[in-house]
Amino acid sequence: MSTSESHPEERSPKKQRTEPTYTLIYWPSIPGRGEYVRLALEAAGASYIDLCNTSSGGVSILQSFLRGDDIGSNPPIFAPPALQVAGEGLNGEPLLIHQTANILRYLGGRLELDGENEQEALWTAQLAMTALDANNESHNTHHPIAVAKYYEEQKEEAKKVAFEFRTVRVPKFFSYFERVLKWNEAKGQGKYLVGKKLTYADTTLWQVMDGLHYAFPMEMAYRKQSGAFPLLFEKFYPGIENESGIKEYLASERRLPYSEGIWRHYLELDRRDKDDSKES
Amino acid sequence: MSTSESHPEERSPKKQRTEPTYTLIYWPSIPGRGEYVRLALEAAGASYIDLCNTSSGGVSILQSFLRGDDIGSNPPIFAPPALQVAGEGLNGEPLLIHQTANILRYLGGRLELDGENEQEALWTAQLAMTALDANNESHNTHHPIAVAKYYEEQKEEAKKVAFEFRTVRVPKFFSYFERVLKWNEAKGQGKYLVGKKLTYADTTLWQVMDGLHYAFPMEMAYRKQSGAFPLLFEKFYPGIENESGIKEYLASERRLPYSEGIWRHYLELDRRDKDDSKES
Repeated sequence: MSTSESHPEERSPKKQRTEPTYTLIYWPSIPGRGEYVRLALEAAGASYIDLCNTSSGGVSILQSFLRGDDIGSNPPIFAPPALQVAGEGLNGEPLLIHQTANILRYLGGRLELDGENEQEALWTAQLAMTALDANNESHNTHHPIAVAKYYEEQKEEAKKVAFEFRTVRVPKFFSYFERVLKWNEAKGQGKYLVGKKLTYADTTLWQVMDGLHYAFPMEMAYRKQSGAFPLLFEKFYPGIENESGIKEYLASERRLPYSEGIWRHYLELDRRDKDDSKES
Repeated sequence: MSTSESHPEERSPKKQRTEPTYTLIYWPSIPGRGEYVRLALEAAGASYIDLCNTSSGGVSILQSFLRGDDIGSNPPIFAPPALQVAGEGLNGEPLLIHQTANILRYLGGRLELDGENEQEALWTAQLAMTALDANNESHNTHHPIAVAKYYEEQKEEAKKVAFEFRTVRVPKFFSYFERVLKWNEAKGQGKYLVGKKLTYADTTLWQVMDGLHYAFPMEMAYRKQSGAFPLLFEKFYPGIENESGIKEYLASERRLPYSEGIWRHYLELDRRDKDDSKES
């Protein structure tokens, strides 16, 4: 069906909506996976409502969506984040979609955050998915046994998983993204993963790196100092946070602080010193 | 860029290619994540090469792709599966993409396996991604600490994770997909998740259920007998495996047996009896 997609801008150029088109539905008070959606919207300067953070309903609004209240002809949501888009569902009702990578690809096409042609859009999608895999593995470091149980109930296993994540998986992901930045260096100058300008793959990887800085500050300092990932740490990471839209957003109150979500800082899960060669 | 996508059929109607358009690059000898791609191709009757299973090179071919040999102007691959598509890359060279959900969405649009409009395509994508999340969690049951280590090195943790997966996560995923089948029952008759005909969300969820039958036969028998998921077990699962294309594929030698991949059968990780109320 890909031929039937069209930009809303093409259908109604310069039309001013009185309400925001996009509504983000996600847990209140934490960045979480909602942050990947926020960053794409903010980078494009799109108007949106962060529903559970800006209404008094908070969690109960989210829960009503998860129960399936008021979702119209859309299928049920499995888990947040979800995105509601005014007028884009069947018969002109609100569209409701979920899965972070699905939302990002949808927004990427509409907000011109997925490159200049079909190939770049496909590469943007796969790179964002790979960064989201790193996000999931990072969450798994503090909840390796059961997402429904407390960290304290799985602390010993968490130490093992965090050690593996920091010493094997992080270098694997970083080596890969360093290779991609190198591959695109002629066009992206080490600042963009795909093509000549910002895509949602960039904002997604940036958020993963930023979350890792919060969760594992010692490990990230070590990886930066190692010199093994010069494009990633010296050009990409500082470059993205100074992008138009992103810079203003990060300085605003809309950017939520890290706390007890995906990104958590537990001293015992981080690197202890330079010679972190065995499990603590 | 979504407006620039077009079906190859539209560009060259009824053109017969002398070589298959699609080449799947995945580990040889196991179904794995490659199976989601195979099922989509087989369901559509598309011609393809399963490269590492049909050439003498096997693993070494895959490794050369992962190193970045002969990938042309495409970015590096993080992990298999990858899909190569003749003539669809930049300047008419082969296109190379990775990430299972990305490959499926690409094929879904070209092979008419993602519904009848943009909304159904988005729902198909999110449902396939949710089924793939269940795939990943199932893999995690036998490798909860480190993918690079042997099962025997993480057997005790695996028992805990498998118990949580079977008793909490499987019912959560199944309840969700049962709700989706119910939501679409008027159109899909309990057999399809989205709309009136087969999508890659169906083939993906079917493969997850089939893999779970292999890995956790006791648990799956218990869930079926519970009667809590009638559409899923009585209509959907037997329906999809009798779909045209799928039925012939499953009876062919191209369908690889389960062994030591994502889906593994360890007696100690499965349910033991009806009263499996605590960790073994």
